[in-house]
Amino acid sequence: MTSQGSKPTARTSSQVRAVAPSPSARTQTLLKGKDGIGTVRRTVLPGGLRVVTETLPSVRSATFGIWAHVGSRDETPTLNGATHYLEHLLFKGTEKRSALDISSAIDAVGGEMNAFTAKEYTCYYARVLDTDLPLAIDVVCDMLTGSLILQDDVDAERGVILEEIAMTEDDPSDCVHDLFAHTMLGDTPLGRPVLGTVDTVNGLTADRIRRFYKRHYDPRHLVVAAAGNIDHQKVVRQVRAAFDKAGALTQTDAEPLGPRSGRKAVRTAGRVDLLDRATEQAHVILGMPGLHRTDDRRWAMGVLNTALGGGMSSRLFQEVREKRGLAYSVYSYTSGFADCGLFGVYAGCRPNQVHDVLGICRDELDRVAQHGLSDDEIGRAIGQLSGSTVLGLEDTGALMNRIGKSELCWGEQMSVDEMLGHISAVTPDDVRAVARDLLGHRPSLSVIGPLKDKQAARLHDAVA
Amino acid sequence: MTSQGSKPTARTSSQVRAVAPSPSARTQTLLKGKDGIGTVRRTVLPGGLRVVTETLPSVRSATFGIWAHVGSRDETPTLNGATHYLEHLLFKGTEKRSALDISSAIDAVGGEMNAFTAKEYTCYYARVLDTDLPLAIDVVCDMLTGSLILQDDVDAERGVILEEIAMTEDDPSDCVHDLFAHTMLGDTPLGRPVLGTVDTVNGLTADRIRRFYKRHYDPRHLVVAAAGNIDHQKVVRQVRAAFDKAGALTQTDAEPLGPRSGRKAVRTAGRVDLLDRATEQAHVILGMPGLHRTDDRRWAMGVLNTALGGGMSSRLFQEVREKRGLAYSVYSYTSGFADCGLFGVYAGCRPNQVHDVLGICRDELDRVAQHGLSDDEIGRAIGQLSGSTVLGLEDTGALMNRIGKSELCWGEQMSVDEMLGHISAVTPDDVRAVARDLLGHRPSLSVIGPLKDKQAARLHDAVA
Repeated sequence: MTSQGSKPTARTSSQVRAVAPSPSARTQTLLKGKDGIGTVRRTVLPGGLRVVTETLPSVRSATFGIWAHVGSRDETPTLNGATHYLEHLLFKGTEKRSALDISSAIDAVGGEMNAFTAKEYTCYYARVLDTDLPLAIDVVCDMLTGSLILQDDVDAERGVILEEIAMTEDDPSDCVHDLFAHTMLGDTPLGRPVLGTVDTVNGLTADRIRRFYKRHYDPRHLVVAAAGNIDHQKVVRQVRAAFDKAGALTQTDAEPLGPRSGRKAVRTAGRVDLLDRATEQAHVILGMPGLHRTDDRRWAMGVLNTALGGGMSSRLFQEVREKRGLAYSVYSYTSGFADCGLFGVYAGCRPNQVHDVLGICRDELDRVAQHGLSDDEIGRAIGQLSGSTVLGLEDTGALMNRIGKSELCWGEQMSVDEMLGHISAVTPDDVRAVARDLLGHRPSLSVIGPLKDKQAARLHDAVA
Repeated sequence: MTSQGSKPTARTSSQVRAVAPSPSARTQTLLKGKDGIGTVRRTVLPGGLRVVTETLPSVRSATFGIWAHVGSRDETPTLNGATHYLEHLLFKGTEKRSALDISSAIDAVGGEMNAFTAKEYTCYYARVLDTDLPLAIDVVCDMLTGSLILQDDVDAERGVILEEIAMTEDDPSDCVHDLFAHTMLGDTPLGRPVLGTVDTVNGLTADRIRRFYKRHYDPRHLVVAAAGNIDHQKVVRQVRAAFDKAGALTQTDAEPLGPRSGRKAVRTAGRVDLLDRATEQAHVILGMPGLHRTDDRRWAMGVLNTALGGGMSSRLFQEVREKRGLAYSVYSYTSGFADCGLFGVYAGCRPNQVHDVLGICRDELDRVAQHGLSDDEIGRAIGQLSGSTVLGLEDTGALMNRIGKSELCWGEQMSVDEMLGHISAVTPDDVRAVARDLLGHRPSLSVIGPLKDKQAARLHDAVA
């Protein structure tokens, strides 16, 4: 990211020839929307930088984001927490802007700017009025290409991150998910926490983080995504100019990094992890291996997950909360990674009820593994997934997330109609098959709460 | 709510005469939008039931809600928690529907249905695709007018609410706000927690809750609010039919209940409440009396609050987190009630840093009380409030909230342009004046965390 990029011959596709930004950018219309809504375009710039956009002309806002194909699973044990630390540091200043300049710019127009780090990616974004989109692009591109990562900022931000770790520790309904990842995946890149630990964060130096930044924020690893009342070519031109100015697009023949590949078998079964804490509730996750992100059975699993624990009318909510009043919060969820996945049931309840709750959850998992779900439940879950998919279309932040993550993790885009087609095509047999495959597996268990001796020993019954 | 209402002569306003739903409904266009966006209409039905709507024809969704003018401040000490308990029970079934029927209906179309109880109001709502609006109206009206509140449901739901209380206790960054209300307002209706306590919830009987329901869910106490791609008269007709069927509109000359009135002086100063807990962070709120909801100075206070602790570029964020890395979460906030208000600064930090953080916050409060804010800070805060107000217009849930709460709490509606006018009219002198009035007050302090002996004793320095 040091010198100005050259601009070789154009390879622009026919749809946009008239407005192609400049040589060597390749633009495709991936999805054609209706009435201007839902048109998804992608341009690959020199340097391998991708720009995907989705138009929603009926709104006055836009969300602009940049995704980096790096997450905590790319960290060695001693680097654990580096991706997240780096995410914080990108807000601390560039050659052009101080930390206050960065936050002031977006605050002054009432926008919201934030970022999140996950196990396989990191995303920086700003949601603003459409008239402020050029400002948002300018600020976010500057952060991604020109962060200084100064020693003083690394030192000050270490305190913030240690506070974030302490805050997460104070929310057992949150950190039980970290415990569950550890239970299922152990001390592996995917099993370690995104935030790192107090020890690893204390061990991270400015040098190591700078090296991590250089290595993982190459344009080939990045996806720019924008959604809302926007013009694809204008976004492309501004992003290109910003990256060019930072000297980030010099390697003109570089190709974008494809999605992660590989398969990882998760074989954990019957394991119990208990973190003894003086909380009011016991926070439990009972779960088993799930599906990797591209598994064809993921649509059936979505229906299964929704019917089992995805809403107030779901099996688990009805059995645990509605009929027996044993919990306030109870739900199931899935997490899918490139090469493996997890399926979990969360419940929070007072310690004297934990065995009842676990017994009911285990019984339902076994029952659904053996008998599947009723046609009523499946029909309702299909309706729920379809309706919420369509309702999600009005939020430019959700649209930006979908196209950015799709580009990064699948390398392709799917229209809403196609998604709705996959959802409605799920049959009771599909659900029965995926329920047997997943829920038939012997579960493991993670618990945070004040359980001692006999109570703790009984936890093993739930995973017998 | 037992017999069919009669239908006296029409008093419909001119704008809607052609489509007036039936006699005795009075409809007004309160705000005229542009291009169909932002038109707010109100109809008063017989029985004193109000229906307010705001149109947003560019979306495919709608949010429908019913607001009850009852909150925890309407409870006696032994009834504490009754409003919230009742909110739960309204999901448990009517003569027409079981609890599962209620949740299934909205889940099946992918909608989201929920409710919230506050100190001065309770709201039930569903967000759905516009084509499913009739279903949402049917379900929510049924819940409000026809809930059974059976003994068995009261018993089962008690467990759920005790779990909710336990869950809140496990989130110190949440329950420190309850502690702060107690610090500032003591054992008064406003000072007590919305959820009640384990003791009061255990003491609430089905009979008492039923009486509470009958008393507070009279149509005169309710406001129906809908926003999105909707037709005002269609909503009015369906709501009227539903309430009529339930026999709830019989008292045809009843007038709607006006906003709460009165003034309550909050004089707490220099008080310190510490809840000793084995948490990782100390969670603190340093605060003082604020403004009641209708105070003319509220626009200046909004600017003050935003500049002081409303975003990443705010004074407190910069001083506590950006420069010194002493906290992850630090912000200021206001709560306005009909007759009084609170102003608070929250921070979460490890116990050994709590005195530094409190010192910085107190210094900034004093500094701003004495010198006001810079023109830059005020300009940015005005931009931030204005931009976020406009960005909020795209969410039908936010629109429904605004018009429903406005009707209930102010008895009038304000257009976005008018709001933007109030915000941009705030001058540095206005901010200086309200800062002197509010922040010049000696603060009080609420803390949850593992502070003992000397550390605990030093807390009084922050409010000296």
